[in-house]
Amino acid sequence: MESIKELSKEIPQAVISRLPRYFRYLGELKDEGVTRISSKELSNLMHVTASQIRQDLNQFGGFGQQGYGYNVEYLYHEIGKILGLDKTHKLILIGAGNLGQALVNYMNFQRRGFLFCGIFDNNPALCGKKIRDIPVQPMENLERFVKENDIDIAVLTIPKTSAEEVAGILSECGIRGIWNFAHCDLSVPSHIQVENVHLSESLMKLSFRLKSDARI
Amino acid sequence: MESIKELSKEIPQAVISRLPRYFRYLGELKDEGVTRISSKELSNLMHVTASQIRQDLNQFGGFGQQGYGYNVEYLYHEIGKILGLDKTHKLILIGAGNLGQALVNYMNFQRRGFLFCGIFDNNPALCGKKIRDIPVQPMENLERFVKENDIDIAVLTIPKTSAEEVAGILSECGIRGIWNFAHCDLSVPSHIQVENVHLSESLMKLSFRLKSDARI
Repeated sequence: MESIKELSKEIPQAVISRLPRYFRYLGELKDEGVTRISSKELSNLMHVTASQIRQDLNQFGGFGQQGYGYNVEYLYHEIGKILGLDKTHKLILIGAGNLGQALVNYMNFQRRGFLFCGIFDNNPALCGKKIRDIPVQPMENLERFVKENDIDIAVLTIPKTSAEEVAGILSECGIRGIWNFAHCDLSVPSHIQVENVHLSESLMKLSFRLKSDARI
Repeated sequence: MESIKELSKEIPQAVISRLPRYFRYLGELKDEGVTRISSKELSNLMHVTASQIRQDLNQFGGFGQQGYGYNVEYLYHEIGKILGLDKTHKLILIGAGNLGQALVNYMNFQRRGFLFCGIFDNNPALCGKKIRDIPVQPMENLERFVKENDIDIAVLTIPKTSAEEVAGILSECGIRGIWNFAHCDLSVPSHIQVENVHLSESLMKLSFRLKSDARI
């Protein structure tokens, strides 16, 4: 089998965005003790065509064998590696409100190797408070903490009014990725990867579909 | 100008998914007192090509005038109408944990016409507690509440282990849309619109990009 590392550079964006879903289904199958699955069975489960599954997985050199199907555990681990889940990521949270607290408390992230190491908030009333044993620190400590603790990813759960300024600070202290929940697009140098979660926009898409549905 | 209602059925999915972002930028321009903007200026602001902006907006019959540009307020309101934001949506929250509380407390949803009317949780310790003046009710009340209050959208911030069962109940009491934060795909009748927010998958996409970036 060809090396995944060499191949993955040219993978279309649409395929990449489907990988986490494959990973989720394969993880569930693995947990249920399923050892192998055909593209047809996986297709029925995931409600995508078997041909799309084969095409997607062929992007990585193909993991299946005709007449045998896919080895669930092997495929699960390989997709995990492609997604970078074979290494640990060190995260900080900026903004310790309800949403931020929910993210820190969500155990699944830790299971996938995403470890919250620090929490920051500009509200003095929150400083010292602990969320899953991690104390909330004032924003003044941010820069030093990121540098000293080799943090990969900053999670922004702050209002958009302060997001741009905080992103500027993060850029300067060597953060590599920002998971941005602030309702704005951040201007950061191109070597910083930004993944946006714009909840309002997701809700608007649902609203559009409800409206379209009503007209049919 | 042609009627938006007649045209919007054939709009490509990719265009639809870009509309909330246009809406956000136009709203900000409007708030700053900008009355008109050229596709070139909007392009610089949004970091998409002017030709894509023109193409996207032409899907709705075109809102611009050569040499004048777009009327910001008009375009903002028209896109709002396309997205169904000219009407009020009645929401319930199911799952009153940190994430659910964050959503109920997020004022921007209300400003866009998304009104939380009821909150449900299966934890008896939470029942009676108020979140933004809305009392948490036991799950037994769910079905009657949805029917009596003409609820449009249910927001699921519950573990995936119970999501499928709750979605089944919701299907039977006439809900039209589900905003699903549970980490699973729901099987519901096709007349129910489901919009998923799978936070783990978003984080995995960021992880993939960090990994790809490291190889360059």
